[in-house]
Amino acid sequence: MKPQDLAPAPLDAVISLDAGAKVRDTAYGRRAWKLARLTELGLPAPAGAALSFDCVRRLAEGGPMPALPLDFSGGRLFVLRSSPADRAWGGPSAILDIGLTEATLPEVARGIGTGPALALMCRFVQSYAVGVAGLDPEDFEALGQAAGRGRGRRVNDAAEMAALVEAKKALFADETGAAFPEDPMDQLEAAARSMARSWNRASARILREARGAPPDAGLGLIVQEHALGLGGALTGHGRFQAVDGRTGAPARVGGFTLVGESTARPLTGEDSLQTLVPGVVEALDAAARAASLGLGDAFQLDFSIGAGGLAILDAAPARRNARASVRIVVDLANAGAIARNEALLRIDPRNLIEHLHPQIDPAAPRDVFATGLAASPGAATGRMVLTAEAAQTAAAQGEATILVRVETTPEDIRGMHAAHGVLTIRGGMSSHAAVIARGLGLPCVVGAGDLRLDPEAGTLATPDGRILREGALITIDGARGQVMLGAPATIAPELGGAFSELLEWADAARDLGVRANADTPAEARMARDFRVDGIGLCRTEHMFFEAERITVMREMILAETPDERRAALDRLLPMQRDDFREIFEIMRGLPVTIRLLDPPLHEFLPTGDEEMAALAAATGLSEPAVRARARGLGEVNPMLGMRGVRLGVVMPEIYEMQARAIFEAAIAVNRDQGAAVAPEVMIPLVSANREVELVKSRIDAVAAEVRREQGAALDYKIGVMVETPRAALRSGDLAASSSFLSFGTNDLTQMTYGLSRDDAGRFMRDYVNQGVFHEDPFHVLDVEGVGELMLIAARRGRERNPGLALGLCGEHGGDPSSVRFCKLAGFDYVSCSPFRVPIARLAAAQASILARRAEAGETE
Amino acid sequence: MKPQDLAPAPLDAVISLDAGAKVRDTAYGRRAWKLARLTELGLPAPAGAALSFDCVRRLAEGGPMPALPLDFSGGRLFVLRSSPADRAWGGPSAILDIGLTEATLPEVARGIGTGPALALMCRFVQSYAVGVAGLDPEDFEALGQAAGRGRGRRVNDAAEMAALVEAKKALFADETGAAFPEDPMDQLEAAARSMARSWNRASARILREARGAPPDAGLGLIVQEHALGLGGALTGHGRFQAVDGRTGAPARVGGFTLVGESTARPLTGEDSLQTLVPGVVEALDAAARAASLGLGDAFQLDFSIGAGGLAILDAAPARRNARASVRIVVDLANAGAIARNEALLRIDPRNLIEHLHPQIDPAAPRDVFATGLAASPGAATGRMVLTAEAAQTAAAQGEATILVRVETTPEDIRGMHAAHGVLTIRGGMSSHAAVIARGLGLPCVVGAGDLRLDPEAGTLATPDGRILREGALITIDGARGQVMLGAPATIAPELGGAFSELLEWADAARDLGVRANADTPAEARMARDFRVDGIGLCRTEHMFFEAERITVMREMILAETPDERRAALDRLLPMQRDDFREIFEIMRGLPVTIRLLDPPLHEFLPTGDEEMAALAAATGLSEPAVRARARGLGEVNPMLGMRGVRLGVVMPEIYEMQARAIFEAAIAVNRDQGAAVAPEVMIPLVSANREVELVKSRIDAVAAEVRREQGAALDYKIGVMVETPRAALRSGDLAASSSFLSFGTNDLTQMTYGLSRDDAGRFMRDYVNQGVFHEDPFHVLDVEGVGELMLIAARRGRERNPGLALGLCGEHGGDPSSVRFCKLAGFDYVSCSPFRVPIARLAAAQASILARRAEAGETE
Repeated sequence: MKPQDLAPAPLDAVISLDAGAKVRDTAYGRRAWKLARLTELGLPAPAGAALSFDCVRRLAEGGPMPALPLDFSGGRLFVLRSSPADRAWGGPSAILDIGLTEATLPEVARGIGTGPALALMCRFVQSYAVGVAGLDPEDFEALGQAAGRGRGRRVNDAAEMAALVEAKKALFADETGAAFPEDPMDQLEAAARSMARSWNRASARILREARGAPPDAGLGLIVQEHALGLGGALTGHGRFQAVDGRTGAPARVGGFTLVGESTARPLTGEDSLQTLVPGVVEALDAAARAASLGLGDAFQLDFSIGAGGLAILDAAPARRNARASVRIVVDLANAGAIARNEALLRIDPRNLIEHLHPQIDPAAPRDVFATGLAASPGAATGRMVLTAEAAQTAAAQGEATILVRVETTPEDIRGMHAAHGVLTIRGGMSSHAAVIARGLGLPCVVGAGDLRLDPEAGTLATPDGRILREGALITIDGARGQVMLGAPATIAPELGGAFSELLEWADAARDLGVRANADTPAEARMARDFRVDGIGLCRTEHMFFEAERITVMREMILAETPDERRAALDRLLPMQRDDFREIFEIMRGLPVTIRLLDPPLHEFLPTGDEEMAALAAATGLSEPAVRARARGLGEVNPMLGMRGVRLGVVMPEIYEMQARAIFEAAIAVNRDQGAAVAPEVMIPLVSANREVELVKSRIDAVAAEVRREQGAALDYKIGVMVETPRAALRSGDLAASSSFLSFGTNDLTQMTYGLSRDDAGRFMRDYVNQGVFHEDPFHVLDVEGVGELMLIAARRGRERNPGLALGLCGEHGGDPSSVRFCKLAGFDYVSCSPFRVPIARLAAAQASILARRAEAGETE
Repeated sequence: MKPQDLAPAPLDAVISLDAGAKVRDTAYGRRAWKLARLTELGLPAPAGAALSFDCVRRLAEGGPMPALPLDFSGGRLFVLRSSPADRAWGGPSAILDIGLTEATLPEVARGIGTGPALALMCRFVQSYAVGVAGLDPEDFEALGQAAGRGRGRRVNDAAEMAALVEAKKALFADETGAAFPEDPMDQLEAAARSMARSWNRASARILREARGAPPDAGLGLIVQEHALGLGGALTGHGRFQAVDGRTGAPARVGGFTLVGESTARPLTGEDSLQTLVPGVVEALDAAARAASLGLGDAFQLDFSIGAGGLAILDAAPARRNARASVRIVVDLANAGAIARNEALLRIDPRNLIEHLHPQIDPAAPRDVFATGLAASPGAATGRMVLTAEAAQTAAAQGEATILVRVETTPEDIRGMHAAHGVLTIRGGMSSHAAVIARGLGLPCVVGAGDLRLDPEAGTLATPDGRILREGALITIDGARGQVMLGAPATIAPELGGAFSELLEWADAARDLGVRANADTPAEARMARDFRVDGIGLCRTEHMFFEAERITVMREMILAETPDERRAALDRLLPMQRDDFREIFEIMRGLPVTIRLLDPPLHEFLPTGDEEMAALAAATGLSEPAVRARARGLGEVNPMLGMRGVRLGVVMPEIYEMQARAIFEAAIAVNRDQGAAVAPEVMIPLVSANREVELVKSRIDAVAAEVRREQGAALDYKIGVMVETPRAALRSGDLAASSSFLSFGTNDLTQMTYGLSRDDAGRFMRDYVNQGVFHEDPFHVLDVEGVGELMLIAARRGRERNPGLALGLCGEHGGDPSSVRFCKLAGFDYVSCSPFRVPIARLAAAQASILARRAEAGETE
């Protein structure tokens, strides 16, 4: 708080709009402030005065109307507009043409002609009756329609128009029991009181509070000369903005409508504003640029042209889409109109997604046949395929496909890599398909439960009865969850220019790390391109699904003894080591957090007959024996079963092999020139510290062995993935054995809610619609439940081990509000899918800026 | 703390055992205290003195031996015994016959004969050499064997014995470099120092600390005249107790061994102690009773008979099994020897289980062919059956069966009712089979994973290669998790007498409610017989598995529209109402908490072909359509899926029907004479308060409707089953809409650990063995994790709603330490399986007594 706020200067109830900085938005509203600034900047804004919040509040309570030095002579009319402190809070509509009476009509008619003047009065009477006296607009419309009936809809004849005015005034008198006011000051006072009272209505209050207004938000009012109407044939008004609303690039966009005409003219070209008033477009451009530099935003100007020349009536933020927003704020900052931090704060990080993926052209028609959850954004078009194999075959022939499955499993991963988009019938925002697709930056719609897939027949039945066959051309919109027939036009992604400039500023501004979840060299490269601070989650299980590996993996799983298991693991070791080596090379100089094997082993076993037979052949077991083993490994609730560290405790050979692969790879990479790799080994699904102690002692032993064998130094860290509520509660214990805690918020959310992400799709929509959950908690971090566990864990962990690093590596790492929460909770980094890294970088920057401001005692 | 503890009188290093109350166990040890008390009670305990902890500590450190006024003349021998503060902490073995030297031997021989005297000396030299000088016993045994070789094992001839004594003394001198001590006081001092030092050894310290000893636990020593050996032919010693160790009933149990004989004689009958010394058994009986009344426990007396007559050397707690313990403490309390509260505290509640179920006779041989988890206690013998139907058929013919399944499902319930015991191959302590079996009081072993069941062949293969066929006679021991062939002898349950008397005292002492989990009228009746305070969990789903209902239930589940669903529910309503009515009748005057439908709907659908076809016929759907619907309802993680309140939110008709059934049944019962029923409606699997609000408003609406229709009053409560960590964290919100919170600790444990109770069996044993979990958390409440969530929830809930009732209704309600935790956490009640109610009643009483003592500032 600044000193002058402590003892504010006494406010004038009414202030002139040319009073400059004295016209404060916290006293007279945003519009008054803006008009005063435009006036200061030398823009031709019409003169006028502003009524303070206090003054309007008193008006609503029946207080006196302040004195306003208005000159209604010479046909001058006035407009009364609302001016709340924030445009988003709404406010009653403007009342135009105040001062138009039987007495002033001739003067007005002298300026614009009798017909237009009468039309103006006809409009004014109705808008006053409705807006000020609260009468029913339909009654007045009916009068107008009756008058115009038989000759189209418009009354043009002056006499008829005069009759209509009289009819409307008579209706007004009937309904209100008083004659239509013929004193301009009476009109003004009634309009002002009516607007003041309407601001106090419960419905208006609820609406603006929903938009963030405080309970005591005030309304200011502005009285301005109504510049329109005094310029003869060239009278009219228009809109202008100096940026392209789709790209944000400099442009001249707008239109101009002459009084009496119903369609707008273009700014330039034939019959344009430029031909009517040469030089005015340049003047508008200059005005828009001046406003932009002076007020720090791109504006759409409301202007009028009349006898007095050009008048700027209002300046609203220029209309723009998500991409244009970025270009606009970067240009503003580069022009010095706003600070870079301000530019960073202006962009909703989620909108960056539109830069990353193709979008369906908003103008293109859509033949939507199903909707599901918008699991991974972007548009993709391709031939419908129903198996991962078909997707791979098509990809080999260069053909785009959309992979359609009831739900995906790890066996579908290669098919997902090959496809251009994924559609599933079941599953929630964090189902396998959704998580993998976001990781791959692959458009994806999940949980389209109204579709009926018949894989054997190769058909997909839509709710409206259509039957699509495999090979049909379909398009999915992963940002909206829509599935449609055919190939609507799309807009290409845009990653350079303003987008990358903004993200560079974000990196400079943020003090929260952003890492990527990356399982493969391809993802690691993508992550590095997105300038991450490291890999926060490298899942090792996907590495085992490669064609030549899965059989060895399955032999390991079916092993009857630790020795057999070790033999299979020995064959997996070099493959896994090569995986890590490649990823470490790519990530040189940055930390790479590797999660030890996590999923239940049965996820690696085949389900199909052919694969089952192949496995029997490979292992030398009988087919029934293989089936029996596979059945024996089955689980009722695999999410809560024999997985994660439980594998590590019960079958220590697996983690030992993985640790060896990590350490050998790290030493090999560090032998070459260049920055060293810093592997961080992460233990999943911990619920008790003893699990960590057991696994850690074995990993440390492997490290000592590898150091000795290789005669090389080796630095590494061991940490815990906090995924169970118990791990969060017991983080004080865990911190004693761990260098870092990384919160796996997908599983932590599942367990905190008792909610399987794979099964939640069936009711999540109902739940969000009925307001049970404000948002899907797999999408936006549940601060009240999951978040509290994170806060408890952070506090207890740091108390025990002040050097403990804290990270988040769930899907929430790419959600701005969750990133902000992590910053507030004192985390060191977040980690998310590579394609959400830009969002996380910007969100982290915003959180850092706001945190610094809060520390400095500034308000946000 | 009492005043005299604040300023203790200075301690004597040595005190006489007839010094009465001055012989404190905290200064001289438990044995000294006990001997002093026996002396006070007038029992013929030999005179002696006790060395204090301090004195013994100084001895170990080389301090001076205190003066002891011992008289070694007349062949008097002494014994040195250890006396720690708690018998359980161990201590070095006694050294007998101190004072036996070449000089005193003739006097001893005069009393008992030369042969026995030399035998005594032979024994003494060896025990001194081993126990005091630390020499190897095998060397001395070898000498004895060499001497006895050729004529059996015993050296009887006095000359030979004298030679053996000399040989042992020579060996002693060789090994120690010093002659065997011939001064009684030297012997005593060396023995005392040796025992003092042995108490300080690390191994002894670790052992006693594991048994609860503090690090600074002291050792006292007792020097007593060794009463044995001075009575001619009638010299000997024996043991006696006045209670039957198997029943606790009064009895005369023990034996007596004459010096020189190797087998004990009986107390009465031919060649008994009674015939040797008429009247001595009555004297022993009187002594045992006096000790019992004076010291407040039943004792086994160590006694000797010699020239001095009867001497009581020691009194250890009488040996007893779990059943006898109860009878003994009840008799002690009734005799006024201990207070009732003390009696209640003496019994481990878990041991009550032995009263409730048949036990396998400890003496019977067991042919164990498999082990699993001890899921529900008791022994059961029967023919092995592999299907629920076979169990029902056999039951109809009056034949006992053991139902053997891979795992059970709700469809097996009727079969479980019919069987005498249940054995499953898979599943953990809280699997379906285990939970249901405990509810039914049915012996059960689960997770016997080494068995291979082939249901089609009707065989069970054991790990040692045996193949059992359906119909084989087997027995399961649900208390030890064993499965055996044949029918070993069993001991019948015992519920009357002392058992029920103790539980009545428990009810008077406890201020924590005990309710039962009861789903059926039969279980409700059982619960009422066990004197519960109400039903804490009545699950409604089992009601739908009755033959005539399951089809209607399935029609409801397969309904495509809310209207179809409602039609099926209308048919279920009267059945469900009748269920509640019967339970309410039984529970008149007591609260009944009814949990609304909880399991996922697919659990009700059939899996077999025949049933599938029957369902298709009943619903009019095609069989493939039924299959498709069933598949569509399938879930990846049913535990975390569409169940509990999620059903209630998405398909409100189901809960509405259940609420109506509850309310109509309550009104019907309340119309009759008698105490009114108090239904409590419980909403399962809540994770957000909005779920409660939605369901509550509908239930309240149904209640209003039923009240209006019936023109009757109706009282009920609505509460929440806290099963998700989030519900615990948000209990402040929940408390605003709820009358009670009942913690479903089975599910809460699953979710806090991320651990499915159905799948944990596979690694739980590894986990407990490796110390990852101290105990199975589904068995003993995890105080550090789950318990903390309960404490958070209790605090936040009561802060918001001080009248909020708190209960626990998981399996933990029958675990004593968990019950104690609930008392400490301020809960109102626990609820458990009917068969665990006695345990809970006693545990609740103990917790209440201890809490009152703690409040009163007494130590436990």
